[in-house]
Amino acid sequence: MSEPAKTLEGWYVLHDFRKMNWTEWKKLGSEERETIMAEFFSLLEKWNNTQSKFEGSHGLYTIVGQKADFMMMLLRPTMEELNDIENAFNKTRLAEYTIPAHSYVSVVELSNYLPADKDPNTDPEIQARLKPILPKWQYVCFYPMDKRREGNDNWYMLPMEERQKMMRSHGMIGRSYAGKVRQIISGSVGFDDWEWGVTLFAHDVLQFKKLIYEMRFDEVSARYGEFGSFFVGNILEEDKIKAFLHV
Amino acid sequence: MSEPAKTLEGWYVLHDFRKMNWTEWKKLGSEERETIMAEFFSLLEKWNNTQSKFEGSHGLYTIVGQKADFMMMLLRPTMEELNDIENAFNKTRLAEYTIPAHSYVSVVELSNYLPADKDPNTDPEIQARLKPILPKWQYVCFYPMDKRREGNDNWYMLPMEERQKMMRSHGMIGRSYAGKVRQIISGSVGFDDWEWGVTLFAHDVLQFKKLIYEMRFDEVSARYGEFGSFFVGNILEEDKIKAFLHV
Amino acid sequence: MSEPAKTLEGWYVLHDFRKMNWTEWKKLGSEERETIMAEFFSLLEKWNNTQSKFEGSHGLYTIVGQKADFMMMLLRPTMEELNDIENAFNKTRLAEYTIPAHSYVSVVELSNYLPADKDPNTDPEIQARLKPILPKWQYVCFYPMDKRREGNDNWYMLPMEERQKMMRSHGMIGRSYAGKVRQIISGSVGFDDWEWGVTLFAHDVLQFKKLIYEMRFDEVSARYGEFGSFFVGNILEEDKIKAFLHV
Amino acid sequence: MSEPAKTLEGWYVLHDFRKMNWTEWKKLGSEERETIMAEFFSLLEKWNNTQSKFEGSHGLYTIVGQKADFMMMLLRPTMEELNDIENAFNKTRLAEYTIPAHSYVSVVELSNYLPADKDPNTDPEIQARLKPILPKWQYVCFYPMDKRREGNDNWYMLPMEERQKMMRSHGMIGRSYAGKVRQIISGSVGFDDWEWGVTLFAHDVLQFKKLIYEMRFDEVSARYGEFGSFFVGNILEEDKIKAFLHV
Amino acid sequence: MSEPAKTLEGWYVLHDFRKMNWTEWKKLGSEERETIMAEFFSLLEKWNNTQSKFEGSHGLYTIVGQKADFMMMLLRPTMEELNDIENAFNKTRLAEYTIPAHSYVSVVELSNYLPADKDPNTDPEIQARLKPILPKWQYVCFYPMDKRREGNDNWYMLPMEERQKMMRSHGMIGRSYAGKVRQIISGSVGFDDWEWGVTLFAHDVLQFKKLIYEMRFDEVSARYGEFGSFFVGNILEEDKIKAFLHV
Repeated sequence: MSEPAKTLEGWYVLHDFRKMNWTEWKKLGSEERETIMAEFFSLLEKWNNTQSKFEGSHGLYTIVGQKADFMMMLLRPTMEELNDIENAFNKTRLAEYTIPAHSYVSVVELSNYLPADKDPNTDPEIQARLKPILPKWQYVCFYPMDKRREGNDNWYMLPMEERQKMMRSHGMIGRSYAGKVRQIISGSVGFDDWEWGVTLFAHDVLQFKKLIYEMRFDEVSARYGEFGSFFVGNILEEDKIKAFLHV
Repeated sequence: MSEPAKTLEGWYVLHDFRKMNWTEWKKLGSEERETIMAEFFSLLEKWNNTQSKFEGSHGLYTIVGQKADFMMMLLRPTMEELNDIENAFNKTRLAEYTIPAHSYVSVVELSNYLPADKDPNTDPEIQARLKPILPKWQYVCFYPMDKRREGNDNWYMLPMEERQKMMRSHGMIGRSYAGKVRQIISGSVGFDDWEWGVTLFAHDVLQFKKLIYEMRFDEVSARYGEFGSFFVGNILEEDKIKAFLHV
Repeated sequence: MSEPAKTLEGWYVLHDFRKMNWTEWKKLGSEERETIMAEFFSLLEKWNNTQSKFEGSHGLYTIVGQKADFMMMLLRPTMEELNDIENAFNKTRLAEYTIPAHSYVSVVELSNYLPADKDPNTDPEIQARLKPILPKWQYVCFYPMDKRREGNDNWYMLPMEERQKMMRSHGMIGRSYAGKVRQIISGSVGFDDWEWGVTLFAHDVLQFKKLIYEMRFDEVSARYGEFGSFFVGNILEEDKIKAFLHV
Repeated sequence: MSEPAKTLEGWYVLHDFRKMNWTEWKKLGSEERETIMAEFFSLLEKWNNTQSKFEGSHGLYTIVGQKADFMMMLLRPTMEELNDIENAFNKTRLAEYTIPAHSYVSVVELSNYLPADKDPNTDPEIQARLKPILPKWQYVCFYPMDKRREGNDNWYMLPMEERQKMMRSHGMIGRSYAGKVRQIISGSVGFDDWEWGVTLFAHDVLQFKKLIYEMRFDEVSARYGEFGSFFVGNILEEDKIKAFLHV
Repeated sequence: MSEPAKTLEGWYVLHDFRKMNWTEWKKLGSEERETIMAEFFSLLEKWNNTQSKFEGSHGLYTIVGQKADFMMMLLRPTMEELNDIENAFNKTRLAEYTIPAHSYVSVVELSNYLPADKDPNTDPEIQARLKPILPKWQYVCFYPMDKRREGNDNWYMLPMEERQKMMRSHGMIGRSYAGKVRQIISGSVGFDDWEWGVTLFAHDVLQFKKLIYEMRFDEVSARYGEFGSFFVGNILEEDKIKAFLHV
C-alpha cells in the first residue's frame, strides 16, 4: 500500500448554485420584492458579522450560462453550521424564487505534498489558508476533480515520492500565477461525488483558462486528472444585488 | 471460476433521501403543519416501538447540500416490512411536502474475508452486527460501491486467497478508526444498482474523509474500488425535528 | 466472424414500472377512488381471461425504494398486443395517478448454448418456457444486461465453443438454485437499450443476492457481464391491490 | 491519415418521438378533440401531397414502452423544410398534448464501402435509395450508432481496404435478410450526437432481433460498433390514428 | 512536462439554446405577443448597435430537432458583458416563453499550432478572427470537444512537435473547405465542461458532415478527439423572427 498524503483541514465549504425563477419573481409587486430582498439582506448581515469575527466567510457570484444564475460560496468551522445556514436560506422567501442547480460539500485542505517546515496549528499563514476570508476579486471559477485510478494511470498506486515530485512541479505552475490567480483547494472525499473542489479567483478571467490549460500539459493533470463541470462567474458585490434582482 | 466469498445477511435496509418542498410547506397554516407533524411523530412512535423490541432500527439525518434535505435510514427483518413502512410514509401528509431525491435498497452483510471462528447464528456480537441498532452518533456518511471488473483490474477474477489478503489489509485500516468511525456494510447485489452500500457514523465528520482517503491508497480501493455518490449529514434527533421543520 | 448463438423466441414482454402520485390520489374522494379501481380491476379481469386461455400472462409487484412504486410485467404473443395493452392502461383513470418510471421491451428467449435434443416447436417443456405463465412466488427481481465488447474482454469475438463452455458452467450455478429461484431470460436486441432482460422469482428474497453474487465470480459475468439498474419487489396479489391503494 | 469513405447523401431526416399527455387530452371534450385531430389530419394531407410528388416522405409509428408513445419519421430534400415541418407540427393544437421524448437529425446516406459501378446521380435504384418513400411495413426499429475509436479498436485508424472488407462481410448479413428487413442508413456526423441513425422496417418484428444479433458477432459490430438507445414500434396507418387517440 | 500550445484569445462567447413554450405562447392574445416581440426587437436593436461599432457580435438560429428551438450566439469583449446580456434577455417577457435547453461559455481562440509570422495584436486579419462579426451564412453547426487523455492516446503527453505536425495536417483539411465552411474555435478550459467549442457556418449544410467526417479519419480526431452533443440549425434573420414566432 502506498503511503497516503497527510492533509490539514480548515473550514467546511458549501458551494450553492441557484437559478432564478424570473417568471415568478416578475409576477410579484415591487413592494413585495423589496420585502423579500430585505429579508435576504438581513441574512447577509448575519453572514457579514460572522465573517468580521473570522468565524466563517462567504461570497456571492453571478454565474455565466444556463448552469446557474448565481452561486453562494459559504465557509463555516463545522458541518452543522453549514447545514444550518443552508436550511436558513432555504426557508427565506427569496429561496422560493430560486431553483437549486448544483451544490458541492467539501472542507478547505492543505496537503503535505508541499514541504512543511512550520507548525500548522499556530502558523498564521497556514491558519489563514485553512480558514480563508474570500478575496473580493472580480472573477470566480469552480470545478471538482479526481485523481485517476485507471489501468496504468493509477495515482493511488504510485509511491509517495513520485506523487510528491509531480505535485511539486504542478505547484510551480500555480506559483507562477501568484497575484493573478488565487486558489482554494477543498477536499470532498466522503462528503461529495469528487475527491476535490477547486475554487479559483482572478482579476482577469482569462487567467483561469491560461492556468488550467498550462497545467493540463503537466503529467499530474495530463495522466491523472479527471475533471467535472466548470462554473465561471462574476463577483456579485452587495451593492449590485438589487440591480441583479431588478426586473 | 474463483471461489465466491461467503456472506452473512441480517436486516434489510432502505436509505430514503428526500428534499423538502419548503415553498408549499410554508403556504400551510401553522396549525395544519402541527397536525402533519403529529401524524409523522406517531409514525416515528411506531418505529421506536419496533426498535425497542429489537425488531428493526431507524435513524433520521439532515443532509448537507442540494442532493437532499433529510434521509431516513430504515432497517427491518424482511423486504415486505421495508416496503410497508416506505409506503406508509409515502401516504402521510408530510410526504406530500417532500420530493424523493434518492434511495438505496440493501441488506446488512458480513463477509468471510475476515477470519470466522464463531457460530454466526448464535454469537451475540455477530448477531448485533447483522441486526444493528443505529448508533446516535453526530454524523452520517453514505455511499454505494462496486468492485471493479475492468481489463487487468478485475476483482472477481482474482483467487480467493488474494482477495482475502487484500481485504484483511483493508480491514486493518478500518480497525485503526475504532471508536472514531462505525460502519455498516450492506450488500445490494440483486437489490440495487451497486454491489454494496456503505454507511458510516462518526462523532467528528472529518474522520469520514480521513478514513476513506487513507483507504483509497490501499490496493483494494485504489485498483478495485468504484464509488457512487457520497451523501453526508447530521443526525436529526427527534427533539430537533420541529426546529428543522419550523418555517 | 464468430458463429452466433441460435435462439428460440416466445412471448413479447413489457416491464412497466410506475410511481404513484399519492398527493393527487389522496385528493380524490373515496368514491371516486373506488370507481377508478373498479375500472382497473375490469382491465385485470381481461388480462386474467387472456392468461387463463394461455394467450399471455402478467404479474403485479410493488417495488422497494424510490425507483418505482409498482411494476406490471406483461407478456403477449405479439408486439401489437403489448402495445395495445400498454395504451389501454395509459388511457385508464388510474394511469392519471401514476408516473412512468421505467420500462423494458423484450421477448422471452432460450438459447442453444444449452444442449438441445428436443424439437422446440412441439416439446411441451420448451413451449412452457417460451410462453411462461408467471409464477406466484413472493419476490421479483429485474435487471437488464449486456455481454461486454471491450478490449480483451469481447464476448462477441470469442469462438462459439468457448462461449458455450462458459455458458454451461454459468447454467450449472443457475441449476443449483432450482426450486429457489426461477428465471425468465428475455432478449432485447433491437427492442431496447440492453441485450437482455433478466427476471427472477423467489420465495426468499435473499436468494436473488446469493445467486447473482455467486455468478459474478463466474467468468461469464466477471469478464463479460455488464449490468444495468436492479429492481426488487414483492408480489402484489389482486386481493392486496385495494390495501396498496388505500389512503 | 486513413482514406475516408466516400458517401452519397439524399433526403434529410427527422425522427421525432413524442409521449402523449393522456391526462390533459382526456380533459378535453370530444368535440374539441375532433377539431384538434382535424387540424392534424390537414397537416398529414400536406405531407401526403409532398410524398405523392416524391418531394419527401413520412411515416407514423406507435412506440412500445415508456420511451415514447408515437414517432413521426420525416424526410425532406432540405434542412429548412425539415425545420419548417417540425415547427409547423409544434404549433398545432395536437402538439400541446404531446411531450417531446427524443429526436434525431440526419441525412440518408449510401457509402462506397459497397462496390459502385453506377452513376449515382442518374441511376434510378440509387436515387430511390437516397430519396426513399417509406415502406408501409408493419414494424419499425430505430437506433443510433458510432464506429468505435478506443485503444486497439479504432475504426478510423484502419486502412480503407480493411474497413471495406469488413463492411462487405457486414453487408452480406444484411443481404441475407432481403425481403424480411429493409434498412435506411442516415448519416448524422455534424447533425446529431451519434455518427449514424439506423431505421429498419420488417413484416415480422423478430427479424430486427435476429438481424442485429447476428451482426453483433461480425467484427464490424463486435469490435467497432457502439450503440445508443433502441426504439421499436408498430406502423400507425392513418385510419388507425383516431383509434390511437380515442379516449 | 510537454510544452503547452500558445493561444490568442478574443471575444467571449455565449451559445444560448432555448426551447419555445408554444403552449403558453399560444395562450397569449396577438396584441400581447406583439408587445413582447417589440421588447425583444428593441433588445436586438441594442445588439445591432454594438455590432455596428465592432464591440461585439451575435447571431440567431433555429435549431432542428427537439434539443432546442432556437439559439442565440453572443460575443462580447468581457465576461461581464456576456453575463449582462444573458441576464437582460432572461428578464424580458419573451424569456418567460422559452425554456433553457443548453448553453456554452467560451472565448474565441487562435493557437500557435499554425505558423505565426505576424504580430497578433496589430495584424488586422488576426484581429478580425479574434473578434469575429458572425457571417450571415445559411447554416450553423455547434459542438464541444476535448483532446483525449486515455491510456496510449494522451494528447497532453505528446511532445509539442508531434502535436504541431498533427494539427497542421488537420488544418489542411479545414483549408480545403475554404469558402464552403467557416469556423470559429473558442476555448472553454476553465469556463465550461469541454475544452473547446466549435462553431461552423456553411451555405450548404452537407458541408458540415463532409468536413467533420473527413477529419474523423485524421489522427488528431481519430485517436485524440472526444466530441459532445452536436446542434445544427438555420440562420434566423431578423425579418424571419415574426414568422418563426407566429402562431
